[in-house]
Amino acid sequence: MNRRTFNISLASAACSLAFSWPQASAQLRVNGQRLNQHLADLAVFGKTPEGGTHRVAYTEADLQAREFTMKLMREARLDVSIDAAGNLLGRRAGRNAKLPPLALGSHIDSVPQGGSYDGQVGAMGAIEVAQTLAEQNVALAHPLEVIIFSNEEGGTYGSHAMAHGLTEKQLGLPTNSGKTVGEGIKYIGGDPGKLSQPLRKRGDFAAYLELHIEQGGILEAEKINIGVVEGIVGINQWEVIVEGFANHAGTTPMNQRRDALLAAAKYIEAVNRVVTSIPGRQVGTVGRIQAQPGAYNVIPGKVTTTLELRDLDMAKIQLLFQRIQAEVAQIETATGTKFTFKETNTVIAAPTDVRVRGTIDETARRLGFTTKTMPSGAGHDAQELAPITPVGMIFIPSRAGISHSPREFSSPADITNGANVLLHTVLRLDER
Amino acid sequence: MNRRTFNISLASAACSLAFSWPQASAQLRVNGQRLNQHLADLAVFGKTPEGGTHRVAYTEADLQAREFTMKLMREARLDVSIDAAGNLLGRRAGRNAKLPPLALGSHIDSVPQGGSYDGQVGAMGAIEVAQTLAEQNVALAHPLEVIIFSNEEGGTYGSHAMAHGLTEKQLGLPTNSGKTVGEGIKYIGGDPGKLSQPLRKRGDFAAYLELHIEQGGILEAEKINIGVVEGIVGINQWEVIVEGFANHAGTTPMNQRRDALLAAAKYIEAVNRVVTSIPGRQVGTVGRIQAQPGAYNVIPGKVTTTLELRDLDMAKIQLLFQRIQAEVAQIETATGTKFTFKETNTVIAAPTDVRVRGTIDETARRLGFTTKTMPSGAGHDAQELAPITPVGMIFIPSRAGISHSPREFSSPADITNGANVLLHTVLRLDER
Repeated sequence: MNRRTFNISLASAACSLAFSWPQASAQLRVNGQRLNQHLADLAVFGKTPEGGTHRVAYTEADLQAREFTMKLMREARLDVSIDAAGNLLGRRAGRNAKLPPLALGSHIDSVPQGGSYDGQVGAMGAIEVAQTLAEQNVALAHPLEVIIFSNEEGGTYGSHAMAHGLTEKQLGLPTNSGKTVGEGIKYIGGDPGKLSQPLRKRGDFAAYLELHIEQGGILEAEKINIGVVEGIVGINQWEVIVEGFANHAGTTPMNQRRDALLAAAKYIEAVNRVVTSIPGRQVGTVGRIQAQPGAYNVIPGKVTTTLELRDLDMAKIQLLFQRIQAEVAQIETATGTKFTFKETNTVIAAPTDVRVRGTIDETARRLGFTTKTMPSGAGHDAQELAPITPVGMIFIPSRAGISHSPREFSSPADITNGANVLLHTVLRLDER
Repeated sequence: MNRRTFNISLASAACSLAFSWPQASAQLRVNGQRLNQHLADLAVFGKTPEGGTHRVAYTEADLQAREFTMKLMREARLDVSIDAAGNLLGRRAGRNAKLPPLALGSHIDSVPQGGSYDGQVGAMGAIEVAQTLAEQNVALAHPLEVIIFSNEEGGTYGSHAMAHGLTEKQLGLPTNSGKTVGEGIKYIGGDPGKLSQPLRKRGDFAAYLELHIEQGGILEAEKINIGVVEGIVGINQWEVIVEGFANHAGTTPMNQRRDALLAAAKYIEAVNRVVTSIPGRQVGTVGRIQAQPGAYNVIPGKVTTTLELRDLDMAKIQLLFQRIQAEVAQIETATGTKFTFKETNTVIAAPTDVRVRGTIDETARRLGFTTKTMPSGAGHDAQELAPITPVGMIFIPSRAGISHSPREFSSPADITNGANVLLHTVLRLDER
């Protein structure tokens, strides 16, 4: 963005605020330089030699990054607290105390050997919006609540604790930090003994907004500034067992084989064929495979592999799964093998709120940005909150669609654009 | 077989021997009951709960089985010794000391968790032939040498030491026993310091014959008694690396993926298609596979897999490999991936001797057996000896083609049939 234009806009916004802020606020912009500096400062915690971020939840790097983030929240004049699930909360009063807060946020933990943008852009973006509003003395009707959710990458634990609650069983689960979830929550200042405290119910938020990097390559490829997320896809995962018969690779003629790996290969091709055979943005992935006994000279007798299907429409996932199973039945007959599908994980699709989505799109266009309505193929904290509040998500381009990698990158200009869309969506929603 | 007929034949053979043994010997038969009892007795050493045999070379079970085998060899009136490579040698003088010995043998070591027939049928069969000749006072023109080769399953070390010699590097290689080859040879009574001693040169044997289970399912399926091995197939093995690009399975659209596992699946299908596209008994196997990073929700960026091709004709293996590579070039283009083939092992095909093969076939037919000329898809000690002597192999049916498994089985009748073919092939070759 052009810095000179930016400064002039800010100045004129500040001058006119006292009279008619909705109109005046149209000129309001975040401080893009500060926002990108905060991202760079945050990236120090857990920095890897490859230039990425290794900041697994409940580790020392996570703890230090949280301290830094709370400092930024206080500088943005937010009242900071930590809930029992370890979520960082930053509150700002509204003009009308009876209104529920408008919430915005994301997370600052990373996957192992991850990047410096996933979650972090939305977290720093939300704080930047609060700081801009504070320093420009913009008083919203609604209270504002910035939420930095704990342990998103390990399984959206912080947002799940807020919308659904955590069970004793979940508290006992291991995490990548080496601690259990319960130990981890305690380590970052939460209280695993008081897990009803973070719970919010329907109506407790006016809306929840999350700015995030796309993590895919669509916006960059189509040269679009802002993605308006229509929903967060549902996910079904299965473990797939293929049973054939292990035998000597030298002495067993080709027509007497029951080769589990050949059958698995046909299955992998079938998944790709079925998923790409109908229009839409559904995806299907086979990501893991093992053949037994696993020697050069033995026909594989058993293969353990996977299936993952994602779409906004759970019924479409079921349709795809049925078609894959129909293909598998033919593969079984052709290869003399037997397939077993065991469902291991299901995440229900979470559509974003139609009105919030429309507001994001309109706001982005009025700011001069091109937009595209798109699903989020990845899971997010917004998904957890969808059952209790209208949610909206704003995507910015990811270079080459790379994410969960040290090579993850979004440009400072795109980050500033996204934060401005977040700011003005807050302002528009507040007017309602 | 009919025991009554059997006894009468033996008796008549014994009576007529003094006059014209070639004619009389036509009635000679091995003692099938004794042979199968020896196999059952041998199976005690390394017996597994599943009823198979775990008798890895250079282990205590191997040592005990060798002691038992030497006892049987002495009972068959053979002069027993152990060469420096740990091979058991059992010698019997011939009528003409100037003739090189006719050699017959196999091995008694097993793969881990293997069966009680692979190698063992040929080893006990060779001893039974010697014992039959001895007790019927049949004096051959040629000396006879029964050889029980050491460590066949670990890489035909005993026969390799005899035909080619072992290098210092080979002596240092690890084995499944936990010992190096050199330590193992010493353990079983060999002398790794004298490895020129076992070496034989071209002309040192008149021929080498090996009785063996088929290890495939062809003889059983076609209800044929005896397989006449036309050669032992050559083997080429490659490690295959497929490089794509690892990415988020949720956010990367199907048409933007460079999925190394999808490419590998197409490759596995291509191997099967190419190998079965031309007539012949060639086989092609992909036995091992690993996808990285190997998670449900990550598109595989790299796959490590294998290729093994076997045929009697090394030129055909090369032709198949070229066709597979041509298919792979198309897969690379279609999937945006890169394949690398690294040759890891080559075993040159070993044709059996045309005259020996013809003698086995004719002998088996005269004994009333159906025969089929076929390749050996598995490697054998005979393969090692082929460069220094005419070799021949006699196959008997394997139930369901199962081998290297506790379920490996050949019937007592088939075992007796095979030993009788071995006996009469020795007699016929000796006449020449």
